[in-house]
Amino acid sequence: MRRLVNDGYEVVEEMLAGYCEAHADYVTFAENKRVLVSKKMSEEPKVRVIIGGGSGHEPLFIGYVGENFADASVVGNVNTSPAPDACYDAVKAVDSGKGCLFMYGNYAGDVMNFDMGAEMAAEDGIRVETVLITDDVYSSDTIADRRGVAGDVPVFKIASAAAAKGYELDQVKAIAEKANQNTYSMGVALSSSTLPVTGKAIFEMAEGEMEVGMGIHGEPGIERTSLEPADKVVDQLLQYILADAQAQAGEEYHVMVNGLGGLPVMDLYVCYRRVAEVLKEKGIQIHRPLVGNYATSMDMVGMSITVVRLDDELKELLDMPCDTPYMKL
Amino acid sequence: MRRLVNDGYEVVEEMLAGYCEAHADYVTFAENKRVLVSKKMSEEPKVRVIIGGGSGHEPLFIGYVGENFADASVVGNVNTSPAPDACYDAVKAVDSGKGCLFMYGNYAGDVMNFDMGAEMAAEDGIRVETVLITDDVYSSDTIADRRGVAGDVPVFKIASAAAAKGYELDQVKAIAEKANQNTYSMGVALSSSTLPVTGKAIFEMAEGEMEVGMGIHGEPGIERTSLEPADKVVDQLLQYILADAQAQAGEEYHVMVNGLGGLPVMDLYVCYRRVAEVLKEKGIQIHRPLVGNYATSMDMVGMSITVVRLDDELKELLDMPCDTPYMKL
Repeated sequence: MRRLVNDGYEVVEEMLAGYCEAHADYVTFAENKRVLVSKKMSEEPKVRVIIGGGSGHEPLFIGYVGENFADASVVGNVNTSPAPDACYDAVKAVDSGKGCLFMYGNYAGDVMNFDMGAEMAAEDGIRVETVLITDDVYSSDTIADRRGVAGDVPVFKIASAAAAKGYELDQVKAIAEKANQNTYSMGVALSSSTLPVTGKAIFEMAEGEMEVGMGIHGEPGIERTSLEPADKVVDQLLQYILADAQAQAGEEYHVMVNGLGGLPVMDLYVCYRRVAEVLKEKGIQIHRPLVGNYATSMDMVGMSITVVRLDDELKELLDMPCDTPYMKL
Repeated sequence: MRRLVNDGYEVVEEMLAGYCEAHADYVTFAENKRVLVSKKMSEEPKVRVIIGGGSGHEPLFIGYVGENFADASVVGNVNTSPAPDACYDAVKAVDSGKGCLFMYGNYAGDVMNFDMGAEMAAEDGIRVETVLITDDVYSSDTIADRRGVAGDVPVFKIASAAAAKGYELDQVKAIAEKANQNTYSMGVALSSSTLPVTGKAIFEMAEGEMEVGMGIHGEPGIERTSLEPADKVVDQLLQYILADAQAQAGEEYHVMVNGLGGLPVMDLYVCYRRVAEVLKEKGIQIHRPLVGNYATSMDMVGMSITVVRLDDELKELLDMPCDTPYMKL
């Protein structure tokens, strides 16, 4: 194992303690210590955006709680959905009478537990709606069955901006759905990630191998092949992403080149260089690109590309100023 | 190799092309393509701060060029000093008649080449002063012989703020020296980093080993031992750092827990939690902590702790608003 942790069973509690200590200006614990609540929430009643999922994807989900971004994050164990009562407790901690929107990546465990949390809230008369993020284009031909990966970040951002502007719950939900429908991602893994409890890799992957289309927990991709040069990998990812998006010359996209944890920043810029080249060749405009580790899988070596088709409404919300430990605009 | 690059000999050019493309609001190339220049430089003549060093430590050094931070960065090959003419070209590109300050970590090759650049500038009548960063407490008993590591970041920040406030060159140099004298770091490595040209590790390190005190290029530490729990590692690093700093109860420190590239963000917060505990026990106040990958060694798995003893002057400069791709205040 190449990790710096103590007892693997305590790693989430210890991470959250460190996070709340380091970013005490931004977040605090709810009564439930698996719920982080923004200290920058508006005093006036607004729709509250609650994000969450398993740990091990930091800075997702905890890093995007703050001003004009998520109001709370619900934290599960490593690669494990948060508990239903934590989802419910997040609602109780932040609802201001305007209802809440749950947003998270589409994984079966998350859906089950967040839905149970929403039902518990409904019994208290608090309305909770849900928008699942389904941006991983290779994970299914059916969009509703796709997994959520780094596209979480721009979709959360856009919906949170709408909530901050005072949109009602139905409107926030509609804009989140629209953002998600226009968000497309695909990744490549060169290694597994290491579980802190066992100290072992989730799956085996030899040095010099890669798998295009692989999910952030090791869900299967196209095929296991020998490692290719960066440009060939980028070209392959973009081929799938742009075909799926039916991207056209003249359109404008927000673009993320996202590191999965263990890939050097150097390599992310090498990849972004190629992404920009290809999109330029195709007559596609790039708006405010992001390059960095935004949604990881702990120490997994790999990278994903996300594109978000923009119109004036999505662009304005995406660009709304925000202030969180991991995104400041 | 677990890297995403093309030709290893082109990696720095490709990284810089991607960086300038992604952050076109912040930086542009000088005529010399190994020099990045801020687009946010003041129009009025001011002392210019020029930072730099070998590549492979991203976001150091390129990520800290921007408003109220460095005015230019000079970029060497991986783990290799920038060329003397690039150092000189950076001066030519940014000097506004008030002189320039070179700031970089203390490595022999950097000292030689930046000094040659300064001499070339002197022949043109441009005054260039130098402050070396020497924060790695374990690298030598003699402070002037110590290497520079993640402490680069706060020292650059403080000096750049002084320059932005209009201090004269001697004053900027004096404040940079004062900041450096109050900055102390030490790290631990759990792996080597991978050179993009050879695809090989710089040195061998087995899984389950660690070396406390190791430098960011693999310079030797205390001894190679079995991996310990995070808290024991933090305690050991802090023991050296705080003894060297002669830290006293009642003092206030800026604190960084810095990832060396391949360590999960999760682990950095686990470590920060312990840092905060220990400093609290000792009655030491923490000011605006930073947790994240600020100065890396590509894919090296490891972490360093940096503390900066603050007084009112250093604190004001450290906290001055700034805007760069990798630090926004």
